[in-house]
Amino acid sequence: MATLKSFVEVHPDSHFPIQNLPYGVFKPSPTSAPRPGVAIGDFVLDISEIARAGLFDTPTLDSSDCFLQPDLNKFLGLGKPAWKEARATLQKILSSTEPVLRDNASLRQKALVPMSKVEMVLPVVIGDYTDFFSSKHHARNCGLMFRGPENAINPNWFHLPIAYHGRASSIVVSGTDIVRPRGQGHPTGSSPPYFGPSLKLDFELEMAAVVGPGNELGKPVNVNEAGDHIFGLVLMNDWSARDIQAWEYVPLGPFLGKSFGTTISPWIVTLDALEPFACDAPKQDPPPLPYLSEKISKNYDISLEVHIKPAGAKESSVVTKSNFKHLYWTLTQQLAHHTINGCNLRPGDLLGTGTISGPEPESLGCLLELTWNGQKQLSVNGLTRKFLEDGDEVTLIGYSKVLNLILNHGAIYLLNSAPVTLI
Amino acid sequence: MATLKSFVEVHPDSHFPIQNLPYGVFKPSPTSAPRPGVAIGDFVLDISEIARAGLFDTPTLDSSDCFLQPDLNKFLGLGKPAWKEARATLQKILSSTEPVLRDNASLRQKALVPMSKVEMVLPVVIGDYTDFFSSKHHARNCGLMFRGPENAINPNWFHLPIAYHGRASSIVVSGTDIVRPRGQGHPTGSSPPYFGPSLKLDFELEMAAVVGPGNELGKPVNVNEAGDHIFGLVLMNDWSARDIQAWEYVPLGPFLGKSFGTTISPWIVTLDALEPFACDAPKQDPPPLPYLSEKISKNYDISLEVHIKPAGAKESSVVTKSNFKHLYWTLTQQLAHHTINGCNLRPGDLLGTGTISGPEPESLGCLLELTWNGQKQLSVNGLTRKFLEDGDEVTLIGYSKVLNLILNHGAIYLLNSAPVTLI
Ligand SMILES: [Ca+2]
Ligand SMILES: [Ca+2]
Ligand SMILES: [Mg+2]
Ligand SMILES: [Mg+2]
Ligand code: NI
Repeated sequence: MATLKSFVEVHPDSHFPIQNLPYGVFKPSPTSAPRPGVAIGDFVLDISEIARAGLFDTPTLDSSDCFLQPDLNKFLGLGKPAWKEARATLQKILSSTEPVLRDNASLRQKALVPMSKVEMVLPVVIGDYTDFFSSKHHARNCGLMFRGPENAINPNWFHLPIAYHGRASSIVVSGTDIVRPRGQGHPTGSSPPYFGPSLKLDFELEMAAVVGPGNELGKPVNVNEAGDHIFGLVLMNDWSARDIQAWEYVPLGPFLGKSFGTTISPWIVTLDALEPFACDAPKQDPPPLPYLSEKISKNYDISLEVHIKPAGAKESSVVTKSNFKHLYWTLTQQLAHHTINGCNLRPGDLLGTGTISGPEPESLGCLLELTWNGQKQLSVNGLTRKFLEDGDEVTLIGYSKVLNLILNHGAIYLLNSAPVTLI
Repeated sequence: MATLKSFVEVHPDSHFPIQNLPYGVFKPSPTSAPRPGVAIGDFVLDISEIARAGLFDTPTLDSSDCFLQPDLNKFLGLGKPAWKEARATLQKILSSTEPVLRDNASLRQKALVPMSKVEMVLPVVIGDYTDFFSSKHHARNCGLMFRGPENAINPNWFHLPIAYHGRASSIVVSGTDIVRPRGQGHPTGSSPPYFGPSLKLDFELEMAAVVGPGNELGKPVNVNEAGDHIFGLVLMNDWSARDIQAWEYVPLGPFLGKSFGTTISPWIVTLDALEPFACDAPKQDPPPLPYLSEKISKNYDISLEVHIKPAGAKESSVVTKSNFKHLYWTLTQQLAHHTINGCNLRPGDLLGTGTISGPEPESLGCLLELTWNGQKQLSVNGLTRKFLEDGDEVTLIGYSKVLNLILNHGAIYLLNSAPVTLI
């Protein structure tokens, strides 16, 4: 198979070759209406213009107005046939050998917008957001810190993908400032609880699945069909205030320690684009219950990094390197578990993986683990950090690259950054 | 002040005198579009027709299309001035002395729909749903059962209104069947966890505040202004699967034990209508932190009952009698706490109070407490119950009645029922 190439120039280091084509929603100018697009090289392809030009002439998409919406929810709700058609159509019209867009100057002018000029917005309306807890390393480290080695991982963790409902309203797109939350922390001695700005502001390195077709209330999704309900993945920073969280979370779980902001990347990388990077999921022991046993259990080999750039610093420092493949529970197990009680998912729902920590000390997915709850210092560009300081800019990066003559074009790269400011 | 009376005949026992006027969204026929209405006697007043007739001629509402929407969110977002104008206008045009609707047969024909003919739908689009844990009696009973008397109420409980994020997608309107959830329960001995239909299906007697104007991300709401952000109250049954919940909830809180369904009443009773029933909130000891200290701390005297009608039974049995005034944390404290970290609320968000248990054994708000986790039997219409059986119909009722010659017209009565079925 010859390598598929686009007529749009794509630098070899670009995150957006024709093999990726992640979906987002953008405004070409600050006053224009939001519309769906895909990233290609240094451009965003405005797919509302491609739809208006009648180029989606496939069975599911031909008469649909899904690309004329201000979000991707309707397209996501159409499911796999529509996603396959859209990807095939877009790869075709962007390819170097296809004249329909390449040789149409006026359509190119309208539809290919320089990425440097656009404003990205949230790609989906998120009805509900759930955050899982699927990295064994993360679960063990949190347990060691707060409950000790006897009982580091609670017994239920090995039988079900633990999760909690998160706050949908405060999910923001990469680049949005995060305001340091105020709140209560543990009292010391007989004093009242601490109240003030959080002193333990943290990031959490996560990815999140974006749900495609949902399910009806009362009708669980079979784990072997769960993949049809997942459109793709975003990077997610689940900002966390560890002092607020530690004081509030017994017995009903995290609340204000999380709900002040959650950042997602503007681009949704589809599972289709990630397929070349699929790998085996870890063996699960004990074996999962039948409703969580899947015929094919897969993860994705996605390298993940977190960079911190202190205010005024010229460069950022890499503070951790992890990988999506470390997750114990798969995306499909998460989704099947989420619906086993009949809970209904809707297109655009977000399922966070939980902090993705790896086994090594350099692969931990949050400062809580990296500094062992502030007991150690982390070196960041010549400065030290226990938790985040005002002005720190945190960037999450994810990429997959298979060193193979056919597949080395498949880099997937996502960016998710936000400076922290004081309330 | 003479008692305000409507030209619409209202039986003395009706839940819907002109002093109540709760808001809902209804379909006059199964095929018609949903529209807002208020309840009056045995009728629903279609306020989209009142708006089309140009009768909302007040500053905020005159040019608004808020009553031409399929939900109340836009109206709720307009805030108190709009709510006051709407209530004054509706009480005026429904009063016995005002001819504009009374003497307009064609408008009456269009706008007054017999309640027996309408289908009620969810009154708001719920962006986020939060459930608090604000009854001290409920918190203590749960603690006694699961943690013992030493530490029945966790120390944080007295300093902040504990809450968790709930699932918005599975909130349904009264009358919707609830499917008994499947899920995992605690393993016994060295066996794998139980898997199957929940064996401990429960109701939770709650009310929930419906949020009006929201707040911007990063901008907390002052506790003394929090009342301006609450439109009214619904009755809420937070269906709970105790076996699923008990196994899953450590350390991140309730998830599938709750998310299979939450029922709310179709009618939102406004805080304006409830004002005659305001009463002092309980004294809080220790005193709350300054951000939770309010100048006026009020509850409402709302009698609450739960009735269960087993399948095939002719009558239902009252299984508990409680009162909204037992809540320790007020609605305004809940809302201020929810936003203190900068979390943004949006119009239509739902804030559940948590199970409202009173101090007496007959005033406990769920079967978990009434049967002490299945250790005792409850008598229901000659039958016995530890938890809910298939076919049981659970009805929540709330009403306020002040025995006072002036105010005895202010009965508030809500109904919230749903039969339970097997998956
Ligand atoms: Ca997380
Ligand atoms: Ca509850
Ligand atoms: Mg967060
Ligand atoms: Mg519920
Ligand atoms: Ni009067």
